[in-house]
Amino acid sequence: MRFASCTLTAIAAYAALAAVPAAADTLVDNVDGITVDQDGEVIRFTGLVFDDEGKVRDVLMRGDDRPDDVDFALDGKGRVMLPGMIDAHAHVMGIGFGALLLDLSDTTSLEGALAKIDAFAKDNPGRPWILGRGWNQEKWGLGRFPTAEELDAIVSDRPVWLQRVDGHASWANTAAMERAGVTAADKDPVGGRIIRKAGSREPAGVFVDAAEALVNKVVPEPRPEDRDAALAKAQEILLSNGITAVADMGTSIEDWQTFRRAGDLGALNVRIMSYATDGDTMELIAGPGPTPWLYEDKLRMGGIKLYLDGALGSRGAILKQPYADEPQTRGLPLLTPAQLRNLMSRAALDNFQTAIHAIGDAANSDVLLAIEELSGTYTGDRRWRVEHAQIIDPAELAEFGKHGIIASMQPLHQTSDRTMAEARLGPDRLDGAYAWRSVLKVGGKLAFGSDAPVEPTDAFAGFAVAISRTDSDGQPFGGWLPSETVSREAALKAFTADAAYAGFADGHFGRLIPGERADFLFVDRDPMLASPTAIRDTRILEVWVGGKRMR
Amino acid sequence: MRFASCTLTAIAAYAALAAVPAAADTLVDNVDGITVDQDGEVIRFTGLVFDDEGKVRDVLMRGDDRPDDVDFALDGKGRVMLPGMIDAHAHVMGIGFGALLLDLSDTTSLEGALAKIDAFAKDNPGRPWILGRGWNQEKWGLGRFPTAEELDAIVSDRPVWLQRVDGHASWANTAAMERAGVTAADKDPVGGRIIRKAGSREPAGVFVDAAEALVNKVVPEPRPEDRDAALAKAQEILLSNGITAVADMGTSIEDWQTFRRAGDLGALNVRIMSYATDGDTMELIAGPGPTPWLYEDKLRMGGIKLYLDGALGSRGAILKQPYADEPQTRGLPLLTPAQLRNLMSRAALDNFQTAIHAIGDAANSDVLLAIEELSGTYTGDRRWRVEHAQIIDPAELAEFGKHGIIASMQPLHQTSDRTMAEARLGPDRLDGAYAWRSVLKVGGKLAFGSDAPVEPTDAFAGFAVAISRTDSDGQPFGGWLPSETVSREAALKAFTADAAYAGFADGHFGRLIPGERADFLFVDRDPMLASPTAIRDTRILEVWVGGKRMR
Repeated sequence: MRFASCTLTAIAAYAALAAVPAAADTLVDNVDGITVDQDGEVIRFTGLVFDDEGKVRDVLMRGDDRPDDVDFALDGKGRVMLPGMIDAHAHVMGIGFGALLLDLSDTTSLEGALAKIDAFAKDNPGRPWILGRGWNQEKWGLGRFPTAEELDAIVSDRPVWLQRVDGHASWANTAAMERAGVTAADKDPVGGRIIRKAGSREPAGVFVDAAEALVNKVVPEPRPEDRDAALAKAQEILLSNGITAVADMGTSIEDWQTFRRAGDLGALNVRIMSYATDGDTMELIAGPGPTPWLYEDKLRMGGIKLYLDGALGSRGAILKQPYADEPQTRGLPLLTPAQLRNLMSRAALDNFQTAIHAIGDAANSDVLLAIEELSGTYTGDRRWRVEHAQIIDPAELAEFGKHGIIASMQPLHQTSDRTMAEARLGPDRLDGAYAWRSVLKVGGKLAFGSDAPVEPTDAFAGFAVAISRTDSDGQPFGGWLPSETVSREAALKAFTADAAYAGFADGHFGRLIPGERADFLFVDRDPMLASPTAIRDTRILEVWVGGKRMR
Repeated sequence: MRFASCTLTAIAAYAALAAVPAAADTLVDNVDGITVDQDGEVIRFTGLVFDDEGKVRDVLMRGDDRPDDVDFALDGKGRVMLPGMIDAHAHVMGIGFGALLLDLSDTTSLEGALAKIDAFAKDNPGRPWILGRGWNQEKWGLGRFPTAEELDAIVSDRPVWLQRVDGHASWANTAAMERAGVTAADKDPVGGRIIRKAGSREPAGVFVDAAEALVNKVVPEPRPEDRDAALAKAQEILLSNGITAVADMGTSIEDWQTFRRAGDLGALNVRIMSYATDGDTMELIAGPGPTPWLYEDKLRMGGIKLYLDGALGSRGAILKQPYADEPQTRGLPLLTPAQLRNLMSRAALDNFQTAIHAIGDAANSDVLLAIEELSGTYTGDRRWRVEHAQIIDPAELAEFGKHGIIASMQPLHQTSDRTMAEARLGPDRLDGAYAWRSVLKVGGKLAFGSDAPVEPTDAFAGFAVAISRTDSDGQPFGGWLPSETVSREAALKAFTADAAYAGFADGHFGRLIPGERADFLFVDRDPMLASPTAIRDTRILEVWVGGKRMR
């Protein structure tokens, strides 16, 4: 185990060496590197040196001398190197659980769906329930709902429970109905319908709307091993999209324990900036203040996620004026002004950060006012976050430039929401909608994310939207409200350095600068030059986290 | 930060050195060392070498060559060195919370008590409630209960709530009663009494039995900082008693998070073998199996604590025959046989250990039967633990020698319980009571602990009882059922190596042998030679955990 004899001189020499950083520095040379630097400028570089701890030691420009003391030298072959992308707003476990469901959305016939279910069941013998989603009997040309018997012929040893594409119906096999105790005696619940066999009260297998709850209530909670599998899957998806760090918006104690299990086993490969799902959870997890950075900057709970309103699509977002397409409502506030301020104070008192979901202009207005009111008491570097900030009263836009507010926005929502937002707000109230450039103009900070699994975890698609306001078909031509596009430099910052800053991670990761973690990608094209369409097709060639190649 | 230039040769030399353990080995020489060795024998040694990770590298005997490659050498000055004591059954947070209460048990007058309350309130300005215990108006010669007004004169800015020495009454100030909303309108609850002012219905300040709940219900849950303070206090108490590792019998998620906060901040100084308070908590904390050893062997959740019965004192322990002093009862089982086996199976299925509280002979009988039944299914190294194992049917004693069962027993309970146990069981049913030597004789493993805060965290007092079966007054002369004393060697094993083994910590700590952690004490006398009375007075001179001096 140990060198048998050692002169004092050798010990002294060793001690001297031990005082310097660990060995195994690596030079990655001949790269077409792009990063945000210490001053917030986007710069180009050609070589990167990182140390054994996975921290950047040097960023080298063309013509700079290369160090002669490194232990490994890699040739970047002239490829484009970017900092790892950071998703400033996602739901890590949701990404994983979503991906572990059986996805039937691409099936075009009942037979095709049954074959896919069969294969999935065989591939997953350990899963006590087969859960899935995405089927559509219309697309199958079936002219009726599928039946439990059709499922039973494929899987009868355990329950199967599959949600329809629109989320308004689910399809069970007999094992699932037995587990739920659903029989011919069950009446249709209010707001729901049990599809019955022809000429009988016998449930046929499909449960509509409120009737889904009859089975949902017996679907088991995920086991710890399911959670571990979901986290592993989420990390795989994030890394394959070039995302090396993510803000988890709504961490439960179960989520946190899953993150820690991965961390304890050295299996946490994506950095997670965690925001607790509520105040009690925040206190339970982090205690009297934010946790330290754990596992070499892989995990930290720094704050709380609050919901002030719902979404525009379901008309839950709260608006100053009635919905254009449903004038009797202005949305549904989820917190009173007093509750919001109490929760923000409780967090701020213990130096936790608050990230407040605010979508409608009335929600954003109240958040801005609350921050204004609390900033006198809770001074210092607070980085108040507004999540989504989708509809801002133009008259209040300038408030985003005060108190270091961060607008945590999701470019892909803009393309997904466009026509819906126009319907909800009408054509005259779109001035402060998804107003990225306006936020920057008043001095606000932008952090970009995906809201995955609501949108895909695709930062390059987000980047393309950010600079174009067009969707994957290039629509609308010239971009939707194109004055709100941002520059490529701003998009890069919002998906890297500023997404890190928004999570108090500056100094830890987000930029390829000395002292921060060597999280970087090799990609096959240059996002600062390629067309938005081309950027969407970016191929991610390599993914490195903390100086270790992950893909 | 880094050496500027370095030849390839130097790098190669450095790499070669880096392959050996880190530097800074320490020799502690000239000690009168005692430990259990690899073979379970108690041995003597005179020198100890440990490495920079805090692991023992060598144990040196008189006459062995001393290594010449160590970086530090300390002179033990001939003092007695012992392995750190291990408490195989305690309640870590309970020790800390108990110690943070204001203790009035040594007060002999109302004035003295009020002075102590005053000092405590001034020393603890941040505590929202002043909580305490131990007062006794009889000892004060008061001839009546104390009043809220007397407390108000000392502390009126926040609630004060002090439990009587017997736990059957508590004393509030006006702030506490106001917080609880208790007024003259409140009636005495069933099983309780509100002491009233003379000639009035106005509450006077003292609440008896069931009436205590009126105020208890508003006593706030501990805040995270209170939990952190309690853990710090518990560690201080344990270390000051020479206890360097402890099995925490009933860890809640809040407890666990407190342990982790300390671990994350490098403030976990006592090693904790954690047993979850219930199955859901075990799953939430540890997931699909025991956690790894965390923080350099400082923390691991390895199993679950179950309660099969209550205690002998309250006649909750379940007996095969009726209580001698209350023939209408045999105690109260807390789990049915089926529940016990289900819970044990659930744990064992995921390789968790079970530690089952069993005090009465009927409880021990059922645990032994359950282990017998489950051992066929759950094979391998299970280390089934029976906690307390106080009253064993002599006919079943031999079962403790099977299936690797561990009897986790607390010597101090024997002295505390002696007269009570005689009353509960009668003179003819004491043969299997606190039957330490019998357990060893049949081949069972003994692990000793304190059950603190129920008993003091005093392993040396436990050691003295283990070898004498006499209390601190040397009573009864010759020891109670003295055939059940154990040898000094057995007592040392049960408080060190075997207490570690009982927590699956062998190979990590518990013995001063190469590869285990260098957890050791210097004490002022030799427990293998001193009288039981002298052992109780052992002074702990130094406490080292993982090669670092803690006291």
